[in-house]
Amino acid sequence: MSSASSNASSPAPSPPPPVVSKSKIRFCPACGSPTKLAIPDGDEKMRAICSSCGRVHYENPKMVVGCLVEHDNKVLLCRRKIEPAYGLWTLPAGYLEVGESAAEGASRETLEEACADVEILSPFAQLDIPLIGQSYIIFRARLKTPNFSPGPESLECALFALDDIPFDSLAFSSIIVTLRMYLEDVKSGNIKFHYCTINKRVGTGTSDLRSFDIDNHLSV
Amino acid sequence: MSSASSNASSPAPSPPPPVVSKSKIRFCPACGSPTKLAIPDGDEKMRAICSSCGRVHYENPKMVVGCLVEHDNKVLLCRRKIEPAYGLWTLPAGYLEVGESAAEGASRETLEEACADVEILSPFAQLDIPLIGQSYIIFRARLKTPNFSPGPESLECALFALDDIPFDSLAFSSIIVTLRMYLEDVKSGNIKFHYCTINKRVGTGTSDLRSFDIDNHLSV
Repeated sequence: MSSASSNASSPAPSPPPPVVSKSKIRFCPACGSPTKLAIPDGDEKMRAICSSCGRVHYENPKMVVGCLVEHDNKVLLCRRKIEPAYGLWTLPAGYLEVGESAAEGASRETLEEACADVEILSPFAQLDIPLIGQSYIIFRARLKTPNFSPGPESLECALFALDDIPFDSLAFSSIIVTLRMYLEDVKSGNIKFHYCTINKRVGTGTSDLRSFDIDNHLSV
Repeated sequence: MSSASSNASSPAPSPPPPVVSKSKIRFCPACGSPTKLAIPDGDEKMRAICSSCGRVHYENPKMVVGCLVEHDNKVLLCRRKIEPAYGLWTLPAGYLEVGESAAEGASRETLEEACADVEILSPFAQLDIPLIGQSYIIFRARLKTPNFSPGPESLECALFALDDIPFDSLAFSSIIVTLRMYLEDVKSGNIKFHYCTINKRVGTGTSDLRSFDIDNHLSV
C-alpha cells in the first residue's frame, strides 16, 4: 500500500533496526540525575546508566492482554473511540498492570471496554511484536450474562458471526492474526493454543497494517 | 514451613496488598523532575505523574522467558552462580529484551546460561506471578548439538532424568510448577500448553519457596 514498502530501487537488504540506539530513560527514575548510554560490565547491550548513582535501567517489552469472547458462534468486537486506530474494530485488550495476572487483566479490559463480565475459558494465543516491544496474550472467554455495551474507550460493541468479521476494518495486525487463526481453528474443529511473532516488513510504515509477516508459528 | 504462614491466631483474612502504594519512578525518566502519585483523569489507579511535564509513567509486569530443553528423556538444568537463589537449580531463563521475540529470548538465555544451541519446539507454559510483577513464558526445546557447558551465570549444567529432578533444590516456585506440570504431562503421554497464576500464600516470606498456591490452571 505504502510507496515506502517498495525496495525495487535498492536491492541490498536494509540492516535490522538497532535494539537500543537510544533510550527513553534520559533521567534516572530513582535519583533524577541524567543517564548515559553504555554497556555495563558483563552485559552485551547498551543500557541507560545513571551518571550519579550508577543504577542500570533496563527496557522490557510490555504485555497486552485481551479476550476473544465467544457467544452463540459469534465473537465480541469493540470499535475504538481512542487513538491509535480510532473507529476501527478490535478485541477488548490493553496493557497488563502490575499486581494482576494476565487472565485478570484480560477480564478487566473486557469489562472496561465492553462492559462485559466474562469467564476465561482457555489461553488462545501469544503474539510477539518485537519491533514495538509488545507481546499480545489472548484468552478465549464467554459472557457470564448476555450483556455488553460500549465503555468509555469504545464507540460501539457488537457480536460478529465468523463470516462477517470486518477484516478490512480491524485495528491492529495482532487482531487480524488472532482472528484468522481462530477462524481456521473453528473450521477445522480443533481450537489450539498458538504462538507466533509478527514482524513488520522492512521499509513499511507502522500504519500499513497488512505489511507484516508471521514467523515461528507454533501451536499446541 | 514458615511459622509466619499460619493464620490460626488471626481468623480474619489479611487484605490484599495495594497494587501501587508507592512507585519506583520517583523522578520523571523524560525530564528529570520529581513525580507525584495521583490518579490521572479517566484512570482508576495511582500513577507516578511528572510534576513538571505531566507525563504519566506506568509500571508493567516483566516477562521472563526460558527453555525446558529435552534430550534423551532428560531435561537440562543450570545451577545458579548468581543471587537470588545462588547454588540452586533452574531452567535457563531470564528477562525478555525489547527487540526480540519470547522464543528468541528463551534461546538466547539458554545459550548464555548453558552454552546450548537449541531449537524451540513449542510453547509449554505461561505462569504469572502477580505479587512480583513477573510472567514466565517457557518453551519446550531440543539441543541442536549434544553440547552444553556452564555460562558465566551458572556453576554447572546437567541433564536430569525425570525421576532425578532435584525438586528440593530448585531455585524458584515457577520452576517447581513448570517441572511438575511437565512430569505429569510426560507420564500421561499428552504434553499440553499450560496457563496458571502462582500466588504466594498470605503471610509467607518471599524466600519460602513452597508456600504458594496455583490458581486458574488452564491447559490446552
